[in-house]
Amino acid sequence: MSDLFWPGDERADGLMDDAALLAAMVQVEQAWLDALVEVGVAPATAGGSTLDRLVGYDDIALLSRNAAATGNPASGLVALLRERTDGEVARWLHRGLTSQDVVDTALVLLLRDALARVDADLRAQLARLADLATTHRDDPIVGRTLTQHAVPVTVGVKLATWITSVADAWDEIDRTRGRLVLQAGGAAGTLAASVELAGSSETALAVVEHAAGSLDLPVAPPWHTARSLVTRVGDALVTCTDAWGRIAADVATLSRPEIAELSEASGGGSSTMPHKSNPVLAVLLRRAALTGPGLASTLHLAAATSVDERPDGAWHAEWSTLQLLGRRTVVAASQATDLLAGLEVHVGRMRANLDRAEGVDAEQRSMASLTGRGSDGSAYTGIAGDLTDTAIGRARRIAEGHA
Amino acid sequence: MSDLFWPGDERADGLMDDAALLAAMVQVEQAWLDALVEVGVAPATAGGSTLDRLVGYDDIALLSRNAAATGNPASGLVALLRERTDGEVARWLHRGLTSQDVVDTALVLLLRDALARVDADLRAQLARLADLATTHRDDPIVGRTLTQHAVPVTVGVKLATWITSVADAWDEIDRTRGRLVLQAGGAAGTLAASVELAGSSETALAVVEHAAGSLDLPVAPPWHTARSLVTRVGDALVTCTDAWGRIAADVATLSRPEIAELSEASGGGSSTMPHKSNPVLAVLLRRAALTGPGLASTLHLAAATSVDERPDGAWHAEWSTLQLLGRRTVVAASQATDLLAGLEVHVGRMRANLDRAEGVDAEQRSMASLTGRGSDGSAYTGIAGDLTDTAIGRARRIAEGHA
Amino acid sequence: MSDLFWPGDERADGLMDDAALLAAMVQVEQAWLDALVEVGVAPATAGGSTLDRLVGYDDIALLSRNAAATGNPASGLVALLRERTDGEVARWLHRGLTSQDVVDTALVLLLRDALARVDADLRAQLARLADLATTHRDDPIVGRTLTQHAVPVTVGVKLATWITSVADAWDEIDRTRGRLVLQAGGAAGTLAASVELAGSSETALAVVEHAAGSLDLPVAPPWHTARSLVTRVGDALVTCTDAWGRIAADVATLSRPEIAELSEASGGGSSTMPHKSNPVLAVLLRRAALTGPGLASTLHLAAATSVDERPDGAWHAEWSTLQLLGRRTVVAASQATDLLAGLEVHVGRMRANLDRAEGVDAEQRSMASLTGRGSDGSAYTGIAGDLTDTAIGRARRIAEGHA
Amino acid sequence: MSDLFWPGDERADGLMDDAALLAAMVQVEQAWLDALVEVGVAPATAGGSTLDRLVGYDDIALLSRNAAATGNPASGLVALLRERTDGEVARWLHRGLTSQDVVDTALVLLLRDALARVDADLRAQLARLADLATTHRDDPIVGRTLTQHAVPVTVGVKLATWITSVADAWDEIDRTRGRLVLQAGGAAGTLAASVELAGSSETALAVVEHAAGSLDLPVAPPWHTARSLVTRVGDALVTCTDAWGRIAADVATLSRPEIAELSEASGGGSSTMPHKSNPVLAVLLRRAALTGPGLASTLHLAAATSVDERPDGAWHAEWSTLQLLGRRTVVAASQATDLLAGLEVHVGRMRANLDRAEGVDAEQRSMASLTGRGSDGSAYTGIAGDLTDTAIGRARRIAEGHA
Repeated sequence: MSDLFWPGDERADGLMDDAALLAAMVQVEQAWLDALVEVGVAPATAGGSTLDRLVGYDDIALLSRNAAATGNPASGLVALLRERTDGEVARWLHRGLTSQDVVDTALVLLLRDALARVDADLRAQLARLADLATTHRDDPIVGRTLTQHAVPVTVGVKLATWITSVADAWDEIDRTRGRLVLQAGGAAGTLAASVELAGSSETALAVVEHAAGSLDLPVAPPWHTARSLVTRVGDALVTCTDAWGRIAADVATLSRPEIAELSEASGGGSSTMPHKSNPVLAVLLRRAALTGPGLASTLHLAAATSVDERPDGAWHAEWSTLQLLGRRTVVAASQATDLLAGLEVHVGRMRANLDRAEGVDAEQRSMASLTGRGSDGSAYTGIAGDLTDTAIGRARRIAEGHA
Repeated sequence: MSDLFWPGDERADGLMDDAALLAAMVQVEQAWLDALVEVGVAPATAGGSTLDRLVGYDDIALLSRNAAATGNPASGLVALLRERTDGEVARWLHRGLTSQDVVDTALVLLLRDALARVDADLRAQLARLADLATTHRDDPIVGRTLTQHAVPVTVGVKLATWITSVADAWDEIDRTRGRLVLQAGGAAGTLAASVELAGSSETALAVVEHAAGSLDLPVAPPWHTARSLVTRVGDALVTCTDAWGRIAADVATLSRPEIAELSEASGGGSSTMPHKSNPVLAVLLRRAALTGPGLASTLHLAAATSVDERPDGAWHAEWSTLQLLGRRTVVAASQATDLLAGLEVHVGRMRANLDRAEGVDAEQRSMASLTGRGSDGSAYTGIAGDLTDTAIGRARRIAEGHA
Repeated sequence: MSDLFWPGDERADGLMDDAALLAAMVQVEQAWLDALVEVGVAPATAGGSTLDRLVGYDDIALLSRNAAATGNPASGLVALLRERTDGEVARWLHRGLTSQDVVDTALVLLLRDALARVDADLRAQLARLADLATTHRDDPIVGRTLTQHAVPVTVGVKLATWITSVADAWDEIDRTRGRLVLQAGGAAGTLAASVELAGSSETALAVVEHAAGSLDLPVAPPWHTARSLVTRVGDALVTCTDAWGRIAADVATLSRPEIAELSEASGGGSSTMPHKSNPVLAVLLRRAALTGPGLASTLHLAAATSVDERPDGAWHAEWSTLQLLGRRTVVAASQATDLLAGLEVHVGRMRANLDRAEGVDAEQRSMASLTGRGSDGSAYTGIAGDLTDTAIGRARRIAEGHA
Repeated sequence: MSDLFWPGDERADGLMDDAALLAAMVQVEQAWLDALVEVGVAPATAGGSTLDRLVGYDDIALLSRNAAATGNPASGLVALLRERTDGEVARWLHRGLTSQDVVDTALVLLLRDALARVDADLRAQLARLADLATTHRDDPIVGRTLTQHAVPVTVGVKLATWITSVADAWDEIDRTRGRLVLQAGGAAGTLAASVELAGSSETALAVVEHAAGSLDLPVAPPWHTARSLVTRVGDALVTCTDAWGRIAADVATLSRPEIAELSEASGGGSSTMPHKSNPVLAVLLRRAALTGPGLASTLHLAAATSVDERPDGAWHAEWSTLQLLGRRTVVAASQATDLLAGLEVHVGRMRANLDRAEGVDAEQRSMASLTGRGSDGSAYTGIAGDLTDTAIGRARRIAEGHA
């Protein structure tokens, strides 16, 4: 996949695209068919299939057209797989499942991969931020509030705030990864067909357990119209782009030439203005941060308008929305890692700006006058050091897997 | 407060309105001033104040005008409190805090109350749903997917899905309640003024701990520009309206006269059409479900566009958005409790609709033919009973405080 | 009304609040009743009523509770008016109308007032911008793209871009004002009750025309479930906050102390940092710009989920959303007018920043080298003057009512 | 392009995809280069190029990577075209333009094509709706409000409401098509480079006029940071999905088996439930209606956060958002046309449901009692016929190009 409309999209190559969805749906059908055979619901002659050899990239256009006719991408896949195999495999394939089981579980598999990528990037960012905060723990910089100079702070404590945002996002991603589950309910969420085929609830549940085991996913009650898994994923992904957006806002602001306290390693240039060094990664991160919230809210709307035993449009609104959120967050994760890896901190300029800033000692003088002790002329950075150390500790624990 | 534009708004009376915000801000100032005195930073003569006697409802118009001039509601409050007291109280009031500390902590206090109300309603709903699911565990109803009849299910399993949505929402609310923390960072998030006043970091932190204790809130690093607390609250609240919206969609659909399987206890009527019994609570819940996601996404946008040590507009976008989300969710919580309390389940009509439904035995016959065993003419409801029992168990555990 | 959660809210006093909605609903009932009498459908003894004397501010709490019971604010009002009058007035009041006719038309009346205020502010802003652009037509300032210095431009052409945004917003408001119409359809949009009462379609339509005339609104086919009037209003209002948000972003950026090219007349201060002059109006405008789009999208969702002859929740989602968008846009309009009225343009600092900017002559030299003519050392501002003059002309035409 | 995540996507084949964007950007570069030569700014030896032979589908992956490095897709294209040509063509290519000129104008060209497709579908729909409304002008159907039976209406007047929604959407599309303009401003919106190259403003403007003529687009002042063109397009597209969503809600509801008044020509089936006939087109339209508003609101956010002479992320957020909105609306347009073309109206069932509906004559009796005339037992459909005729007339005028 390549996308001129979303520069950087290739960073998500292989994740959550048509080919990945097709492969994941086939994987779900395979796990289910194998489970039917293993548990003894389907005959041994239905076993030993390798469904992923039967369909591939070239079938996507056909499957897309079928998806439009049936309303979802799984129905046409089942028909195609049955066409291309025969006998007991064709006969037993997909028995007991409904399309939503296949699509939802396949999306969960895709999200698992995407979230793993985001997790790895968040950890790398936290390791880098911990290093940066250690290096610049006590370097002075002017604190800015509502765009104006306020009081001195340290680069350390500014980075501590970045760490808090990124670590909070990691908390959400980590929690969400632990909540991904199988979808298996059959036509209306009761596993009726599976029980009919299996002859008993116990055997039907054994099929579910087996399939879940193959896919390495926990079993859970059907969630065809209870969509909190989906909204949690969306909320967690957007919490990530929030964190990077917040960092990118600082980078874009502080790399303005009049301020020049931060810069990206290699900014994007201009053909006719060779002096320009645009903060391209910050700009592209801001783009992700602006577009994510609207997508996550669409997932909530879909959840909120679910109805009956399977929804009449709300479910269908989720697929592309999840794809966009998932891929864009993976792209942004990678771009944020790069931005931080190459971030240049210009401590000289920070000090110069602070020295030039008017009135930033006003509060200190006011407080000193209040106490009557007079100011000791200290850096007036309060507990910045402690806050920095605490943030560094949290960042390292997550980065090193001890969170 | 009363609101013709949002019928039912009075259910949130006393929560998250101007008077509550004023009271909460005063409570924060009081806790901080008391802490300064208790820890010994301020002299004993600054103690013993009862700030909540100094301002009240009549000051809100003045404070609103001041808020517009300074950009936030805390600055003007401090000025007013200083005007109305004197000596050491006026001198020490608010010292070490910044406006954002006061507003953020006050909002946290308001949210704590609102979330407690939502929690209580969710538990009441789960208790009622468990009862309903017990009563109607095995009552048959036609399963509907994409608006069409699919296979038979039970009322029990339909309610189990409702329980899953509501219990998942409760999980989010419960987790969020445990994450509410104090905001105390001073002008740029370093507690510099507090340390200057206190003479040491340790003493400054003791003030923070003392104030947090008075307010019964945990201490945390300043989160002036790391806003995941705010986005988590928003996401949790919307997960609630998602759950109620999903239930309301079923109620609105199934109370259509041609279906008539559910009805509200007392529908809203019409002056000229006395036969009408509109599903008013379902309608008002759908309203909340449609409007919530956009508000929650605004909180993410605010988080994503935070910059510097305190933001230049993003923070200001949060206040009213949180108020709206908070109050509307409290209102919807109460309306959802009422809807469920009065919900009428028309099992005779459900059976009649199922009996008339064409083709709902097609899958069963198809499965029976596949196994060669023939169908036993059972209800074809799979593991509906087990799923119902599991959901009832979960609902009761949460309702009774054992989750 | 006063609102600590939305500083500046008092600028919308009297517009789109509970009292205004009540008054507008009464006005609609009055116009309809008068029309019934005037046209001769109702007897003369039903005439001469002054409904606005029967209800007032003190009834709002009661009406709010009734609105929750019936699902909308009109039903309870009709009941109350009938209680407080008698005989033929009570008998004929509201006959032929449905609640949605009353609420929709009342909202249109409220929007008419709000849009008139926004229109006046937009014109004032354009007049001021034309003056500013005339004064600073040729003053040099560095052009910035992707946060970095690009090439020199003029203050005039920067203001010309502001004018384009504001004038485009005015176009939308002006068009929208011309599209406000009466809602009158009766129970299901056919005026069946009115025709029954009037004895003929012609007479029923005469009632509609008369009522519309009293309210000074055009007649249109019923739009109970065709909501483009509502979405157009929302889109137009957000186009305004877009324009002011874009200006506020420039003001917030260029009033950073390191840049210091613009400043607000009187910034908001800080109790402990007297040197601070926060760009409060810009900050509050950014708040409005961040929150508006989510509200406007809710109106589209409501339109998109309308169903049947009158909707089951979508309509109810519009009222408060319109109120918020309307009031906040009125507030922002007034704040933007103030911001522009007091805006200070520091041309000396602009020139100094430009003089210090590195590489801003690179493109000019590159072009000169391409032509082989060499640069004439001109200001390299292209057609900035022409663009400024064009924008000034457009601004003045709108401001003076000749657009 | 094919998209398993958005079934039906192939209906937009050739529109607003990577290949189309590449072709459009090349077209813009060609038009500008030709204009430079024609007007005499560039030498004749720079003429006669056929840039579209130099790049193609195979270059998209490379161009995507370049876009990520520079932040937009135009910079890399210019570099590639210069690499693949030589002498005066390479030397003069793109001179005077900035990347945003190329991308914005290319997007306008893509939108022009997409809007033309939407326009054609809207007209086809209006023609079909006019026919349907003519056929079923007086067929009775029960009017439903808040999901409950209200009073009788006609199929004609229900279709008249659909026509109003679709015709209002067409108004927005038609207006928007007339507002598409060229973007040409150079590095910071002053055409400074063009004037430098051309030697005079007049000649530079002649280049702009010539390029605009080639592309058949009007000239306008640069709109690099005044984005109402973009938000207007988004708002117009969403007004279309609103209209189709509203229709789809009726179709999904009225094709429920208990109601069965409408059905799609060929519903989507189920592998194991052959009796099912899902309203697939309605379901897919509802999906589009739920997801569109969030995307349009993102365009407003982008407009509202534009800054400087060219934005730092807001602009970048527009491209994919416009692509999604554009393609999805084209897909939905085509699906809505199909849905209406095949829509089956079951008048017998409508009459049966109406006959069974309780209380739908209550209002009529109440009105008759009020007048004392007694009811004449008429259909109680008021001015439904007139409203239908008016709507049919409007639909035909637009369909036939006389609007």
